[in-house]
Amino acid sequence: MAPDTQADTRAQGARAQGAQVDVIVIGAGPAGENVAGRCADAGLAVTIVERELVGGECSYWGCIPSKTLIRPGEVLAAARRVPGAAAAVTGALDPAAVFTRRDRLVGGFSDDSQVPWLTDKGVTLVRGTGRLTGRPRHVEVTAADGDRRVLIASRAVVVATGSRATVPPIPGLAEADPWDNRSATAARSVPRRLVVLGGGAVGAELAQAFRRLGSAEVTLVEGSPRLLAREEEFAGEQVRAAFEADGITVRLGTRAVEVRRSRPDSATPRGPVTVTLADAAGPDARGDDARGDDAGGEAVVADEILVAVGRTPATGDLGLAAVGLPPGKFIEVDDRLLAVGVDGGWLYAVGDVCGRALLTHMGKYQARIVADVITGRRDAAGEPARDVADGLAIPRVTFTDPQVSAVGLTERAAREAGLAVRAVSVATGGVAGASVRGEGITGTSKIVVDESRRVLVGATFTGPDTQEMVHAATIAIVAAVPVERLWHAVPSFPTVSEVWLRLLEEYGL
Amino acid sequence: MAPDTQADTRAQGARAQGAQVDVIVIGAGPAGENVAGRCADAGLAVTIVERELVGGECSYWGCIPSKTLIRPGEVLAAARRVPGAAAAVTGALDPAAVFTRRDRLVGGFSDDSQVPWLTDKGVTLVRGTGRLTGRPRHVEVTAADGDRRVLIASRAVVVATGSRATVPPIPGLAEADPWDNRSATAARSVPRRLVVLGGGAVGAELAQAFRRLGSAEVTLVEGSPRLLAREEEFAGEQVRAAFEADGITVRLGTRAVEVRRSRPDSATPRGPVTVTLADAAGPDARGDDARGDDAGGEAVVADEILVAVGRTPATGDLGLAAVGLPPGKFIEVDDRLLAVGVDGGWLYAVGDVCGRALLTHMGKYQARIVADVITGRRDAAGEPARDVADGLAIPRVTFTDPQVSAVGLTERAAREAGLAVRAVSVATGGVAGASVRGEGITGTSKIVVDESRRVLVGATFTGPDTQEMVHAATIAIVAAVPVERLWHAVPSFPTVSEVWLRLLEEYGL
Repeated sequence: MAPDTQADTRAQGARAQGAQVDVIVIGAGPAGENVAGRCADAGLAVTIVERELVGGECSYWGCIPSKTLIRPGEVLAAARRVPGAAAAVTGALDPAAVFTRRDRLVGGFSDDSQVPWLTDKGVTLVRGTGRLTGRPRHVEVTAADGDRRVLIASRAVVVATGSRATVPPIPGLAEADPWDNRSATAARSVPRRLVVLGGGAVGAELAQAFRRLGSAEVTLVEGSPRLLAREEEFAGEQVRAAFEADGITVRLGTRAVEVRRSRPDSATPRGPVTVTLADAAGPDARGDDARGDDAGGEAVVADEILVAVGRTPATGDLGLAAVGLPPGKFIEVDDRLLAVGVDGGWLYAVGDVCGRALLTHMGKYQARIVADVITGRRDAAGEPARDVADGLAIPRVTFTDPQVSAVGLTERAAREAGLAVRAVSVATGGVAGASVRGEGITGTSKIVVDESRRVLVGATFTGPDTQEMVHAATIAIVAAVPVERLWHAVPSFPTVSEVWLRLLEEYGL
Repeated sequence: MAPDTQADTRAQGARAQGAQVDVIVIGAGPAGENVAGRCADAGLAVTIVERELVGGECSYWGCIPSKTLIRPGEVLAAARRVPGAAAAVTGALDPAAVFTRRDRLVGGFSDDSQVPWLTDKGVTLVRGTGRLTGRPRHVEVTAADGDRRVLIASRAVVVATGSRATVPPIPGLAEADPWDNRSATAARSVPRRLVVLGGGAVGAELAQAFRRLGSAEVTLVEGSPRLLAREEEFAGEQVRAAFEADGITVRLGTRAVEVRRSRPDSATPRGPVTVTLADAAGPDARGDDARGDDAGGEAVVADEILVAVGRTPATGDLGLAAVGLPPGKFIEVDDRLLAVGVDGGWLYAVGDVCGRALLTHMGKYQARIVADVITGRRDAAGEPARDVADGLAIPRVTFTDPQVSAVGLTERAAREAGLAVRAVSVATGGVAGASVRGEGITGTSKIVVDESRRVLVGATFTGPDTQEMVHAATIAIVAAVPVERLWHAVPSFPTVSEVWLRLLEEYGL
């Protein structure tokens, strides 16, 4: 069947008020797109509702532009670590060329190049904001011009509306119109002075990216005692050390208590921002009336402020209350991605909005699972689809330099989960494969082994360019490969993956 | 026990004529070192015999210096693929700095930094050439000064003498004193014109390394119809295309029929070399008497010639005939690394000399296995040690740009082995993770699946910096993870490892 013909036919159908399709997907980010595409591949009639751009946060304001801003500084740092190559890096990074490339990789903030992937599969795209009406399998779509229509799914509705940056209730912050991941990744110039609130992956990555793009002063503020607080402790410590070596000021264990943006001046078109930090002694002891110029703690003045302290589910217009779910919360789902608390088994949620793991790849994974749940697909062993990975092996890479590439549980999390684990670590830079790649390669590689089963439950690899090393650990965890068997998986010499050999030797094999 | 005390004691013992130890290892390259170290860790008295440098071919004239020569060109090529970073690469690679770094990484061709690893473990190092006398477990060692002594092992003798470059019987080649891997990796200057015989891993890597270090003319001559003939066909094709784009002349399906080095001149201190190639029409039709200036085929004139057409086992002085083994051949071993055809179960061979897989990491793996065989160590399941990996999953990375990173069987080899396989391929550059790393990223990722068991038996990843991607496939093959389970091993976005997702989708999951 010609995809265009099919798409046209379905499009005609969906445009009728109350048109019925098999599956309605709300949100055409990576998760929603994959639900729609996989259901359509299985022969279902699918309509996808998108109020912004097909491709979603990741494609335009997330992973793609952020990694595009990071990569030039990263590869130049790699070259500078290699004598002989360092001699060739005599010029300066060109931020304008980086922004131009970013614009191209985000398709000029147009989804023209992404829509055909859906329509070629016969998926009907409806532009507008989707809302659950309260009637089972009903979705009301409001277009930009205010036009409303109701779509009815015969099988399922899948919510994939994603998340947006949380703006914490810090006095003056919202009024200062801060950068979030969207404005930062869409930047057209490099602020001379940048303050970043939040030392998780987004804040850390963008702090270093802008420093390397040319920001003279970057201050990163994190309330926890360390960066990347959910990773192994050494990860945050190593990133902090690298950031300070890069000239970034890292302020840990403190938080912004007030933000004020002043009038624009010639150097700062949007006006400089003053961020007052809680003093180290006791930020919470300070009364509300102490705010203002004399709020107490140190003040950081910057040309721009980026807020990256967490994510809020994008459920504002979704009508969750109409189906009995708490508004403003992540949608709790079971291992079939079925929303818990909604009768009738028709409402699913995938991606950031389900709160399981706010990572593009996990959203896409959930999307594949939910499509198989909806279509009733079983695997070669006859097993129905269910979400295995979220409870077992969530990989994540923080694209700082050094990178932090991890999967599964940290040692602490494993112990807190009651597992009898033994963890071993080696220096990532200690293998010959690291030595030949450059000078001064640091980092740590660590595995966490469940002693009762002698299988990995977690692994972390820090160091430059460890991003491709984590998939081996993901497979080892997901397949529950005993360490005795991993012993026969020989890492190639001289690759950095030889840390696997050192780790297993350290473990006692 | 203090290692130094132990070492001193053992050293005293071994110096006596006919001193008895548990294990004698002949050859202190990576394989021999690891046999010795692991046996010593298990409490055995070990003597290791080395006639050159502790650390062996790999450390001084193999992997380490070759990758050190390759890395600067590789990382600069990576930077040039990234707009914004490319702008900073305005200078030229500095070969002198590269050679200085090479000298440091090979320890100035001294093993002073490698010996303590052995002695700290209590291993006795005896410098000299080891020879099997014919009496079981007897090894005669001849020192550089001609002094001879006989060592007797109570348990085992392990041969780990490695291999050396094969110099094929091409008229004039030996007389031309060609470069081999040793002289090439130890180079102190970059020849203006270089001709390389052999398009396997060594020849291909060094051809590109010298081109990027500044050789104006590099000609690579390979008798097969493609480079890297044992890898998937696309690998050699992609490397050829990249080489030609780098300005390397690649001559496939032909061979050198004569080599002649002329008198030195001011530009070429060792004298220019003229290499006559068989003409494409029929090299073997030409008679011996046709050699000489008018030998027929095209002549390539270069300042240096590198021969890299294969390896010969380093068994010349080993006395193989005395124990009933054919001299000049690789030593055939069983899965305990025991030499086949030698009675009494006392002679083992590991590393290149056993001919199983001429790769440092496989030699080291065999070393660990043989040490466990000799010490009788069993794993947690009570299984005795045996060489599993050599027959199942040999990983190898060719450090060209693009890299060729592979493990297990090629599709062709799997079919020739009688397996019912299905192979699927995707473009390495087709995933978002490749797009953000640079422009014009090419390459292919391919898995070979044994359909009867639905497990991987081979995988190949070509493209820039795919070196760390192969270990995931090695684990999948060694652990026989069904593709249905690999489906739940989610690759992190945006890493290049997302080719795993595309491959499994292409496979039909």
